[in-house]
Amino acid sequence: MMRKILVLGAGKSTSYLLDYFIEKAGNENLHLTIGDIDPSTIPMHIQEHSACTVLKLDIFNEEDRKKNIQIADIVVSMLPARFHIEVAKDCIALEKHLVTASYVSKEIKELNAHAQAKGLIFMNEIGLDPGIDHMSAMQVIDRIRAKGGKMLLFESFTGGLVAPESDNNLWNYKFTWNPRNVVLAGQGGAAKFLQEGTYKYIPYHRLFRRTEFFDIEGYGRFEGYANRDSLDYREAYGLQDVLTLYRGTMRRVGFSKAWNMFVQLGMTDDSYVIENSEGMSYREFVNLFLPYSPTDSVELKTRHYLKIDQDDIRWEKLLELNLFDAKKTIPLKKATPAQMLQYVLEDSWTLDNDDKDMIVMYHKFGYQLNGRNYQIDANMAVIGEDRSHTAMAKTVGLPVAIATLLILNKKITRPGVQIPISKEIYEPILKELEAYGVVFKEYNVPYLGYNPDSISDK
Amino acid sequence: MMRKILVLGAGKSTSYLLDYFIEKAGNENLHLTIGDIDPSTIPMHIQEHSACTVLKLDIFNEEDRKKNIQIADIVVSMLPARFHIEVAKDCIALEKHLVTASYVSKEIKELNAHAQAKGLIFMNEIGLDPGIDHMSAMQVIDRIRAKGGKMLLFESFTGGLVAPESDNNLWNYKFTWNPRNVVLAGQGGAAKFLQEGTYKYIPYHRLFRRTEFFDIEGYGRFEGYANRDSLDYREAYGLQDVLTLYRGTMRRVGFSKAWNMFVQLGMTDDSYVIENSEGMSYREFVNLFLPYSPTDSVELKTRHYLKIDQDDIRWEKLLELNLFDAKKTIPLKKATPAQMLQYVLEDSWTLDNDDKDMIVMYHKFGYQLNGRNYQIDANMAVIGEDRSHTAMAKTVGLPVAIATLLILNKKITRPGVQIPISKEIYEPILKELEAYGVVFKEYNVPYLGYNPDSISDK
Repeated sequence: MMRKILVLGAGKSTSYLLDYFIEKAGNENLHLTIGDIDPSTIPMHIQEHSACTVLKLDIFNEEDRKKNIQIADIVVSMLPARFHIEVAKDCIALEKHLVTASYVSKEIKELNAHAQAKGLIFMNEIGLDPGIDHMSAMQVIDRIRAKGGKMLLFESFTGGLVAPESDNNLWNYKFTWNPRNVVLAGQGGAAKFLQEGTYKYIPYHRLFRRTEFFDIEGYGRFEGYANRDSLDYREAYGLQDVLTLYRGTMRRVGFSKAWNMFVQLGMTDDSYVIENSEGMSYREFVNLFLPYSPTDSVELKTRHYLKIDQDDIRWEKLLELNLFDAKKTIPLKKATPAQMLQYVLEDSWTLDNDDKDMIVMYHKFGYQLNGRNYQIDANMAVIGEDRSHTAMAKTVGLPVAIATLLILNKKITRPGVQIPISKEIYEPILKELEAYGVVFKEYNVPYLGYNPDSISDK
Repeated sequence: MMRKILVLGAGKSTSYLLDYFIEKAGNENLHLTIGDIDPSTIPMHIQEHSACTVLKLDIFNEEDRKKNIQIADIVVSMLPARFHIEVAKDCIALEKHLVTASYVSKEIKELNAHAQAKGLIFMNEIGLDPGIDHMSAMQVIDRIRAKGGKMLLFESFTGGLVAPESDNNLWNYKFTWNPRNVVLAGQGGAAKFLQEGTYKYIPYHRLFRRTEFFDIEGYGRFEGYANRDSLDYREAYGLQDVLTLYRGTMRRVGFSKAWNMFVQLGMTDDSYVIENSEGMSYREFVNLFLPYSPTDSVELKTRHYLKIDQDDIRWEKLLELNLFDAKKTIPLKKATPAQMLQYVLEDSWTLDNDDKDMIVMYHKFGYQLNGRNYQIDANMAVIGEDRSHTAMAKTVGLPVAIATLLILNKKITRPGVQIPISKEIYEPILKELEAYGVVFKEYNVPYLGYNPDSISDK
């Protein structure tokens, strides 16, 4: 019997997802319906594939949406997260399973009892971060517990970066995902985490100066800064008694210290509008945040304000962005400083046609067993193939696709609104991901608790 | 004929206000009704004065409130600003003049047409700041314009400080007004101002490092940091074409650089709650914001984090606050960092019984006349008499009282919701204030535009 999968939204993160379903269509007897507001952007090999039906679908057209959900066996929503709820409600009414890579919203969570009552699986947070982070972490945590270990420490960092072979700027960074999220990262309150049993708080304007280093074999050194709330998932992972709980974002070494210049200047502020932003030069933009001087240059004022010595590489990083250019202008009307900064950065940090991206993830697991402390470090690096088959699309799309098939094949059976933290889910998915090059390497290292030598906080 | 004044709220800023009315009661034929939720706190010489009626009045008791407003000729509201609107609506309905020292809220402003239609004067912002700042600034600005000058620059700073004779701590600061406002000062968005025709923005975390110095004859040197929006009153003062517009807050030199330590640590954050705040020691409070270390002391971590050298006076300022004391504890439940900091500061910065306060104000007026640029600096310093007769109570209360009598005597006649920026208002009030020691001194100085030498921005 043909199993019908409805994929809603065929944006840039769906290349591997769609390819996976097509690859499996014959053996697994799948039919794929892909609904998108603009189906012309879907690659030809998919549009013309016999197992696929591609159609224009406006998610706000209720009749159309329901009609297509009705004829499917399972729905995969790759829409922006805010659009999931209407789809989810239809899935309850029409009794369909649902898979998304997005965070469980409050509204989705409220559907749990309905989903359970009808035996429906609503699988969420099954992309990269959230997704692979949950699964790879829980696999090690469950293993430690199975041999009688008691968790002491959990740290987890993820980064979306440019691949080493395409890494040709001083920042070692290009936008591989939503630039706006990068510019606003860390805003909205102090970062909160747990270190050796003590709560710790970092205000936004110091966030990028409290970094930690990581080495990934074959890929060199990275740094991590804290996410806003590291204590999310404490209950979900069963880590209520852990001493250290820290989650963060990975960048190449030196990025955070340089990014901090924008924070210090006030350029990442998204809370107010620069009235005369339209047509402002990059140079004038910088000067908004510097003291007035009738004589001193914007360059000297910047060096003085940020204490940039003559031999400080941060200066070359600013020059590389053409930040002092008086001819390059920002075309945005009534833009916030953050929007203006994003424009300037996109001018330099956009991927070239043959650039590749990279995903890195790094976990630390500290535990006690028979009175001794141990630590396992686990990490993963995935390089993209090309601009459409990015590492981001692979690591977000493949777990979604694999989970969808496992649900259809009744390998995942527990109903309700959930995230992939139980063995029946993570084990087959992580195993299958390995065949696609998504592999974690594990290292037994001395338990360091929180290692003061690895702190970069100058 | 007896003129009846109703004063609502007899808090700590009303000592001079009430004394002024009593002093004038005989000659001016005044009767004073003072309504307060707790009239027992009103001084005996007022309670027992023949020209006064003191009564317990709950401002939320509509019948009581209206009854008392009905029998008055004019209402003076010294209540917290958020309570003015109900009083103001009654004043419209019962056709009474109203005087307050508070900012004109949107709701009050909407009553303008009604007030004008009924010939009622709703005088607001007639305390110190706002109040004396408006009047003293407009007096000089109008004089410059009268002789044909064109305004180029206006800067204005006000500070509530401890008097020199009571200034006995390293911060040269004690709380003389609402401590919460001091802890939260500058928060809620970047400071915005105009310098030599260019907009300038300072993010909160740099605000206390961009200060300017002022000297007041006989009182020494002060510093000023920018208020959040210096561009308020641009239209009201007629300064649409001015090149430099800057308003700020005055402190003793070194305060801002030291205060910045709290900002950098994240201690002034009021946006989240420390769950286990109750009973936390001052030392533990500091350690919340410092990296974990199994070996280093909170002292060394603080020195390192804030780059405090051995001979930096900022260190002694922290010690003076007992910030590293492990025995002193904060009793507040689920408090924000800002609330906890306020508790620690009030422990050190509360006025002693015989301490006196001080108010300082400093204006700069730059203008062009016959092709040449000129500058006038004007400043004022007022010292309090004792804990009840503070400089704050004098400079807030006297302008309110004087304006009230001027309205009763029909010397101020223009109806509507207004602030004291016209000559018929500021001239008699400033003149009478001089008799009470509220005197501005003026100095002709070279026009400096924005003087880069006076910037402290290390």
